Amino acid sequence: MTVNYSLDAATASAWAVIVVIFKWKGSLWKLIWREALGWTILMAVLYSVYVYGLKGTEHEQYYKTLFDLTKDVPMDGTLMFLISYMIFNCLTRWLETFRCLGWPENVALMFKQHFNKEAFTRHEQKLINQTVARYLTVFYILLFRDVSSDVRDMFPTFDDMADSGILTPDEVHVLKSSRLDRHSPHYWIPIDWIVTLIRTRYEPTHLINKHGQRVRNRKMGIMTEMEYLKFINELNKLRGKLGDVLSYDWVPLPLALFQSLTIFCYGVLIVNCFQMQARIITSNTSGLSEMFVECMSTLPLSMIHLAYLRISQVIVNPFGRDDDDFETQYLIDRHIQVLNEILCPEETKKRR
Amino acid sequence: MTVNYSLDAATASAWAVIVVIFKWKGSLWKLIWREALGWTILMAVLYSVYVYGLKGTEHEQYYKTLFDLTKDVPMDGTLMFLISYMIFNCLTRWLETFRCLGWPENVALMFKQHFNKEAFTRHEQKLINQTVARYLTVFYILLFRDVSSDVRDMFPTFDDMADSGILTPDEVHVLKSSRLDRHSPHYWIPIDWIVTLIRTRYEPTHLINKHGQRVRNRKMGIMTEMEYLKFINELNKLRGKLGDVLSYDWVPLPLALFQSLTIFCYGVLIVNCFQMQARIITSNTSGLSEMFVECMSTLPLSMIHLAYLRISQVIVNPFGRDDDDFETQYLIDRHIQVLNEILCPEETKKRR
Amino acid sequence: MTVNYSLDAATASAWAVIVVIFKWKGSLWKLIWREALGWTILMAVLYSVYVYGLKGTEHEQYYKTLFDLTKDVPMDGTLMFLISYMIFNCLTRWLETFRCLGWPENVALMFKQHFNKEAFTRHEQKLINQTVARYLTVFYILLFRDVSSDVRDMFPTFDDMADSGILTPDEVHVLKSSRLDRHSPHYWIPIDWIVTLIRTRYEPTHLINKHGQRVRNRKMGIMTEMEYLKFINELNKLRGKLGDVLSYDWVPLPLALFQSLTIFCYGVLIVNCFQMQARIITSNTSGLSEMFVECMSTLPLSMIHLAYLRISQVIVNPFGRDDDDFETQYLIDRHIQVLNEILCPEETKKRR
Amino acid sequence: MTVNYSLDAATASAWAVIVVIFKWKGSLWKLIWREALGWTILMAVLYSVYVYGLKGTEHEQYYKTLFDLTKDVPMDGTLMFLISYMIFNCLTRWLETFRCLGWPENVALMFKQHFNKEAFTRHEQKLINQTVARYLTVFYILLFRDVSSDVRDMFPTFDDMADSGILTPDEVHVLKSSRLDRHSPHYWIPIDWIVTLIRTRYEPTHLINKHGQRVRNRKMGIMTEMEYLKFINELNKLRGKLGDVLSYDWVPLPLALFQSLTIFCYGVLIVNCFQMQARIITSNTSGLSEMFVECMSTLPLSMIHLAYLRISQVIVNPFGRDDDDFETQYLIDRHIQVLNEILCPEETKKRR
Amino acid sequence: MTVNYSLDAATASAWAVIVVIFKWKGSLWKLIWREALGWTILMAVLYSVYVYGLKGTEHEQYYKTLFDLTKDVPMDGTLMFLISYMIFNCLTRWLETFRCLGWPENVALMFKQHFNKEAFTRHEQKLINQTVARYLTVFYILLFRDVSSDVRDMFPTFDDMADSGILTPDEVHVLKSSRLDRHSPHYWIPIDWIVTLIRTRYEPTHLINKHGQRVRNRKMGIMTEMEYLKFINELNKLRGKLGDVLSYDWVPLPLALFQSLTIFCYGVLIVNCFQMQARIITSNTSGLSEMFVECMSTLPLSMIHLAYLRISQVIVNPFGRDDDDFETQYLIDRHIQVLNEILCPEETKKRR
Repeated sequence: MTVNYSLDAATASAWAVIVVIFKWKGSLWKLIWREALGWTILMAVLYSVYVYGLKGTEHEQYYKTLFDLTKDVPMDGTLMFLISYMIFNCLTRWLETFRCLGWPENVALMFKQHFNKEAFTRHEQKLINQTVARYLTVFYILLFRDVSSDVRDMFPTFDDMADSGILTPDEVHVLKSSRLDRHSPHYWIPIDWIVTLIRTRYEPTHLINKHGQRVRNRKMGIMTEMEYLKFINELNKLRGKLGDVLSYDWVPLPLALFQSLTIFCYGVLIVNCFQMQARIITSNTSGLSEMFVECMSTLPLSMIHLAYLRISQVIVNPFGRDDDDFETQYLIDRHIQVLNEILCPEETKKRR
Repeated sequence: MTVNYSLDAATASAWAVIVVIFKWKGSLWKLIWREALGWTILMAVLYSVYVYGLKGTEHEQYYKTLFDLTKDVPMDGTLMFLISYMIFNCLTRWLETFRCLGWPENVALMFKQHFNKEAFTRHEQKLINQTVARYLTVFYILLFRDVSSDVRDMFPTFDDMADSGILTPDEVHVLKSSRLDRHSPHYWIPIDWIVTLIRTRYEPTHLINKHGQRVRNRKMGIMTEMEYLKFINELNKLRGKLGDVLSYDWVPLPLALFQSLTIFCYGVLIVNCFQMQARIITSNTSGLSEMFVECMSTLPLSMIHLAYLRISQVIVNPFGRDDDDFETQYLIDRHIQVLNEILCPEETKKRR
Repeated sequence: MTVNYSLDAATASAWAVIVVIFKWKGSLWKLIWREALGWTILMAVLYSVYVYGLKGTEHEQYYKTLFDLTKDVPMDGTLMFLISYMIFNCLTRWLETFRCLGWPENVALMFKQHFNKEAFTRHEQKLINQTVARYLTVFYILLFRDVSSDVRDMFPTFDDMADSGILTPDEVHVLKSSRLDRHSPHYWIPIDWIVTLIRTRYEPTHLINKHGQRVRNRKMGIMTEMEYLKFINELNKLRGKLGDVLSYDWVPLPLALFQSLTIFCYGVLIVNCFQMQARIITSNTSGLSEMFVECMSTLPLSMIHLAYLRISQVIVNPFGRDDDDFETQYLIDRHIQVLNEILCPEETKKRR
Repeated sequence: MTVNYSLDAATASAWAVIVVIFKWKGSLWKLIWREALGWTILMAVLYSVYVYGLKGTEHEQYYKTLFDLTKDVPMDGTLMFLISYMIFNCLTRWLETFRCLGWPENVALMFKQHFNKEAFTRHEQKLINQTVARYLTVFYILLFRDVSSDVRDMFPTFDDMADSGILTPDEVHVLKSSRLDRHSPHYWIPIDWIVTLIRTRYEPTHLINKHGQRVRNRKMGIMTEMEYLKFINELNKLRGKLGDVLSYDWVPLPLALFQSLTIFCYGVLIVNCFQMQARIITSNTSGLSEMFVECMSTLPLSMIHLAYLRISQVIVNPFGRDDDDFETQYLIDRHIQVLNEILCPEETKKRR
Repeated sequence: MTVNYSLDAATASAWAVIVVIFKWKGSLWKLIWREALGWTILMAVLYSVYVYGLKGTEHEQYYKTLFDLTKDVPMDGTLMFLISYMIFNCLTRWLETFRCLGWPENVALMFKQHFNKEAFTRHEQKLINQTVARYLTVFYILLFRDVSSDVRDMFPTFDDMADSGILTPDEVHVLKSSRLDRHSPHYWIPIDWIVTLIRTRYEPTHLINKHGQRVRNRKMGIMTEMEYLKFINELNKLRGKLGDVLSYDWVPLPLALFQSLTIFCYGVLIVNCFQMQARIITSNTSGLSEMFVECMSTLPLSMIHLAYLRISQVIVNPFGRDDDDFETQYLIDRHIQVLNEILCPEETKKRR
């Protein structure tokens, strides 16, 4: 799950800022140290080649031409604008995706609130509650399998879900016999099961008797008609929300946008590399100390470029294994725990 | 349908970035290779004309004036800002359009959940379910015909829809006898048919007997009153959502905006072309190697301009045949499949 | 109505781009040709005055001072940012206004779906349907009269609406006897009439008999209680949406913003004009060909400024007579047609 | 209320633009003439001091140093960006606040639609309608007192509201005896009164008779149960919306943001002032005519800065007495008029 | 709570602006005085070192190299853009969080409106009302404990809540025996209690008698079925809203973004520091008065950088102890007061 530094940043004191800056997990440092190192080495090598290999030879002129040409390429401001704009757009998508992740509490609580206990025996009650909790879990797993490779690795086939006790063999059979395309989403099927489960136990207020007449039903069902409709409504809302997660996953930012940004960014880094050398050379004192100073003054800007590019790469798909991505496995564990707490409280207590 | 690189970009490793950059379908490369080639050739030709034709002659001065004048035109930053702003605005529209595309699952599932099977024979049930599925399909086709030339090519007239079994001749007749303007949207008519289908089978709780008195109805209909109202509500929501797709298609970004951006962008490319030549000439070493170096350093920036312009052209209307456009044909096939799976499960199994 | 180029721009081919660029209606060209011509002439005149009148005289120095001073005014980037930001804000408003324009289909279809035909004779049915369609039309006309001068010209007074058969004299009398301020919106009055029309025909489930007792009502009304409430709800939603159109019209962007932008923009054009002359003069070859070249290189940028300013002027109020404004007259015709098609299908067929 | 120029700007002709630019009320000119004059005088004084006091003396050098230093401060682009960004953010807040202002029509119309006239005598009907209209008015006044100093001046205490006949002495007593903090909002209390008014006249469908049994109620109340719930719902929605107005008023943009922008802006004006003088002096012809020209060329930019700063000051709180602020007094008058028209039509006619 | 300057800024007069600028609490001045002082001292020290220690020695050259290199680092515009963009994004989050804070009035008023007093004795009524008010308070406290360290300090354990009379020992026991992870949110548990409280007192319209038959219930419960459903709905809405506060707290802006911005900002300040010294030295008159002038001209820009950085640090987490953060303690007090006023009016009066 995303790295949380809210508590540290709650009050804007100097100490809080320092603590936040030197976090490691999900941090700037962890993201860019490899690339920053790589660029520094590349720059050092290029500069050494020039100083020890080319300087004073007849080829020096060709290398210097590179400096002249790169000097006029005015890319920094534009790049910064582009990348930061892109990042904040990705961020918006990322937050919207998160908000679509819809917690199961609402549905579970509503089921508990509307469930008419008096129409069932104690054992039946427990069974129904457990089944609803199980179906909601299956619903989340089927959905996350479509967007997160982590969850797909956990449950590569429906049989694996049966093995871990989340599905019964019968349900696996139903899922398999569905004639949907293998790549079509199956996540709405458990929702359909929940509705069927309630519908078969739900007693309408009127029935047709053997004379074909409509008569008032004397039995009490799992819910009243109004409660049934409200619950269905809540269930459909949850389904709709999580269907939007699939949409976000299915329709990413255009590929060409991502590509052009990446290429542009690396291009700027190369240009920067030559511009820096040009500045050292033109300042006429090409000592080592100077190179160090120059590196120090250029590195921050290059690092910012790199950092922003890396951040955009991390948040472009929030369902991977980056530090800032959503931990789908944790989410599933959490949902199982909360569903059990709400729907099967005795069960959970016993188990521990 | 839009090109999906979500899985590749899930985790931000170096390898993932390389894989994503070198995708072809829907990529930067596919979008701009033609124009990039064209511009390179144009630049080479112009430069050759200068070096081999004008240099040293009395006309050289005129050509050089061009360089002087273009040198002072400070367009890059502004252009970048304009284009990227435009792109993200188009992108927002594009995503909103996608979100308006409303899946039929909600309506189909709700129909299944509310459908009272006991009021009909097995055959009647099947027929009603099939008809509802068919009407929803017709609804999508009629809508997509108005926005996508692909679907219009598939079904140029209502008769073509009858030929492929989606409409009965009677229904074609009704559609044709509608006195709506040929360009007015007809998409809401099948929705009306579904309501009529249910309404004629829906039994109100009270009737007027032959004495003019209001009495309780003893027959049970297709749905209860509350369920009927909720279903109508869901149906109207779907209609509203897809009506918004028409609105988005009907009210594009102002034409003048699109035009000015395109012209501005090509103008900058031409200016860039002369500015580059000016830089080569003023660096006083007009060799071929230099020209190569110069091209390499200018090309990225020009390519970014081109790429962004092309991306904006692709996403300005999401219902065309570009790689990133919505595949309406695929959507229709998918909706037919899902509707059949939900409403006519036996049917689908038999057919295979 | 807004100029539609969606179909042309569906697929991003070279041909599509060219076709779109050379459209006339609602285009850049139509918007700016007058002003572009004006500026070109102004520039030519000023330059001629300088070349043929001032050059070489003692006043030349004063004129040249102008060049020196304008050279340092760094306005372009900022201006571009301001205008494009303003445009996209106007555009957002414009689209939101469009989305508020609320189609009458939803209400008409819902009325049709809920209308209980068995409670009325065939003639009564027709009359009620016609009246509802008529009231909805009046509702739209009263609303558009408040925002669009076109519609106000069509129906300057309520009597004109009676003349064209949209209002009966009685209804005109009611509208006139309303004690609302002349400038207050009357658009909600026809909505009230529709509710009254239904309410008087709507039979509640319980009545008070002559003994003051509450008894079950034996007559069947126009709608059941639930349907009545849903319909009222839909009607109020439509009213709310179109009330928002009035709000948007009533609260424009602050006047000072619009003024400062316009003045700033013309200021930049004047500065540009002198800057261009300065560049020609300082390049020391003040021939005619040079002036042509210079014009060519400056014009695009100035044209973009002009174009953006003009676009912002066009979309700042979407209810005028510009090519990109909403055609309220067309909308009214369209609503009448659709309402007739839905509510009075026999009528429309006969009439043709 | 905000200055409306919609009608003038409906069609983008040259004339319309000129008319809009030369409006006075709420205009740029009215906003900045004082400050613009001040700055011009300040500049003239400073320059005169230099030309007539310092020039040629030994202190000239110190003054010139100021020019050198300010010349390098590159503030303009950034400032423009900051201010325009801030303005559009304020503008968004301003529009959202306006949209929260919630008209009372919806509630009043709904009350009229649901009100069951047959359960009351003619006099009772009138009384109930009047009271509901009065309570809604009180609701608006209590709310506006918390945000607008204008309305607080009109009704500084509850007694003043009783004096103008909007509250009865009893109601004033209830308001006063409320133990809420003096600064806590009281606006929801009249809403509570409306609910109580209806609730006491609302007859539930079932009652408990003296034997403790639940029996069907034979009296008809003010509304049916469904209508009562819908009305309560609408009422709560209005309350929620106007509660948001308080939230917007309570949580302004951070003070530091507003302060830093203001200081930054005045700082730039001072820097500009010196930069302009520097340019005049360095152009070596310090005549009066030159100063005039220079002023003319710098003023627009400074004026834009000023204008934008002033606009942001005007719209940062929309409940003041600026030309563009919401006229709360007008709104209250308008609401009283509309509520009377809807709920007490006979009354209003008689009174005139 | 956030610092309110709305009243002062209501009307944009000169005086209002001055008053607002010189506020202290939550102001720019309070935020930056420490850092501004620090930077000024740092600059003075560095400059003194140069003037009195290095100038004229052989090491002067090394120090001057620093100037040369920093001169070319073009950071200001970009930085300003980045920070202001970041600030407005944080601000949006901050406002959205505020809007999610959901007042309890709606739920409390709805409970009061739907509460059927006739089914209970006066004492029972009071008890139920008090319990509902108490549970809502507990709900807010449990929620705020998860986001605000202030509230967690007030109530570190559930027992502390029992000590202050907000929870009964039994309820503490239930909360403790919940098998939820210690870090999982418990805030929904009191909501569940309220539902249980009503549900046990809510009488369904039908019951099963001893013969297993469904019969009409003759007792009247706390609410009718419709009211119960509406109330549950409102309660769930409040829960959903405040659950979003947790989401916002749980998913902050990516850490790397915050880090890179902070480092970039301090980097710019350091670069600025050397650039300023360079300008003083190159103007060849390194007197003290000059240094003062230079400081004055550079300080505003640096201060703006600092101010913006500090503002972003303050609003990145709105639940700390900064002047502009939400005062959770005040909010809890306020909610207790309002809940008592609405639900237990007699109580509150007596107590005083």
